[in-house]
Amino acid sequence: MQDTCEAVRLLGKRIGFVPTMGYLHEGHAALIRRARQECDCVVVSVFVNPAQFAPTEDFSRYPRSLDHDMHVADEAGCDYFFTPESPEMYPEHFSTYVQVENLSSVLEGTFRPTHFKGVTTVVAMLLLIVHPQKAYFGQKDAQQSIVIQQMVRDLHFATQIVVVPTVRETDGLAKSSRNIYLSQRERADAVVLFQALCKAEEMIASGERTSQKIVGAMTQMVTSKPNVAIDYISVVDALTLDLLETLKPGMQVLIPLAVRFGATRLIDNTRVTVPLHS
Amino acid sequence: MQDTCEAVRLLGKRIGFVPTMGYLHEGHAALIRRARQECDCVVVSVFVNPAQFAPTEDFSRYPRSLDHDMHVADEAGCDYFFTPESPEMYPEHFSTYVQVENLSSVLEGTFRPTHFKGVTTVVAMLLLIVHPQKAYFGQKDAQQSIVIQQMVRDLHFATQIVVVPTVRETDGLAKSSRNIYLSQRERADAVVLFQALCKAEEMIASGERTSQKIVGAMTQMVTSKPNVAIDYISVVDALTLDLLETLKPGMQVLIPLAVRFGATRLIDNTRVTVPLHS
Repeated sequence: MQDTCEAVRLLGKRIGFVPTMGYLHEGHAALIRRARQECDCVVVSVFVNPAQFAPTEDFSRYPRSLDHDMHVADEAGCDYFFTPESPEMYPEHFSTYVQVENLSSVLEGTFRPTHFKGVTTVVAMLLLIVHPQKAYFGQKDAQQSIVIQQMVRDLHFATQIVVVPTVRETDGLAKSSRNIYLSQRERADAVVLFQALCKAEEMIASGERTSQKIVGAMTQMVTSKPNVAIDYISVVDALTLDLLETLKPGMQVLIPLAVRFGATRLIDNTRVTVPLHS
Repeated sequence: MQDTCEAVRLLGKRIGFVPTMGYLHEGHAALIRRARQECDCVVVSVFVNPAQFAPTEDFSRYPRSLDHDMHVADEAGCDYFFTPESPEMYPEHFSTYVQVENLSSVLEGTFRPTHFKGVTTVVAMLLLIVHPQKAYFGQKDAQQSIVIQQMVRDLHFATQIVVVPTVRETDGLAKSSRNIYLSQRERADAVVLFQALCKAEEMIASGERTSQKIVGAMTQMVTSKPNVAIDYISVVDALTLDLLETLKPGMQVLIPLAVRFGATRLIDNTRVTVPLHS
């Protein structure tokens, strides 16, 4: 893969890269199509990265479907489909990790303390193998994109990170490989996440500037469903991820949430620019 | 620098890279000459990397001499002389670190616990800026080379690490920018490090296989000098840095040491292949 990409680059072609954990859905297809539009050569990787799962998490049962993935990638315009194996990525005596401090330890990092260390390490490896001009990530994993952008900036990767809007089901639920875990009842209830994010947007549009009130209203909506547990619903600065108490005009605000429906943990978010005049 | 190197690479030229902290001596010149022999384009960087110094160490008084450095680099065959500034390498909000676990925490790492984290972070950055086919490091910093080789392998940097033999003064003292700190008396005494390493080589050649005896003889030689303090003298596996109690035929052994002469801390080492028959 490294040699292939080097050869492509020496031809002066721009490589667009979509790293995934497979079980591709419409969200991944949107990333691949965007890469197809913007680049000469599109590389899609499928690698379920063990380093970003804690021992208690769903690594072993994470859904896999390589034939389906290859078909989706192909349809969306993929040129090279890259599926490294774990022992190639993490051989015996592997011991190098890339870590973005601070940004990795808040929000998702509070509940998944080793998660982003695994993400940044594998993304660094993949960027060093593929050397893309652009790499594509979904807005659904907002903190992931922010952490990766910080890594790319700090270490001088010659790759532009492109964040693509979240693709949603008809009722608003964000597309996710993990949606398959949901029971029918949970699937129906899970739309409350999107509804709560819409509610937050409406409150801000209507002039609400106190985070506590926004989070309170969202919490009430989510907890109206049975068997839910909220890991977090937060209002943060969209660049620094610092918690915001009060929203100021012109601010870029991120409202991320993580909620468990039974055994299934879902994340979602919305980005809002606070209006200059309320 | 990144754009220049990219343009050079697109011409199909091989880049050789010599990262230094400046105050260049014959050891650095040997690295540059080797790069000149093996590559089409030679890049030398001078950057006194704050991240690899602890607050108590000699960062602020580390010797600097950029005009001299440019002259030495030029004479040895440098094409591009790269001198980034600290705020470019570590801008505000910088927070990404590359760390090689295990190998970074032994030997030097015991006495300088944050040192290699700083080294691997800055070398990762520099490799991402220059993208060299080969990068050159001195054998004097043996553990540094081993840590960097592990990083390059683990993260899939497309750079070959070349380790060049230590250049020594006439009496055997390893060339080092820090030798300038030594008083005349300390400078004379410091040759004992080379003599102790020669003694170790002789003992192994004569059939000695017990590390404790080798370290004992070396310690006795070094401590015969006034005002010395030994941080470590060790016999380790040259690949894993694991401590060795007994030397076995054919083993690649590294004997590294760190000794302070007054306020000046020097390191040196030798690599020995244990003879198959004693």
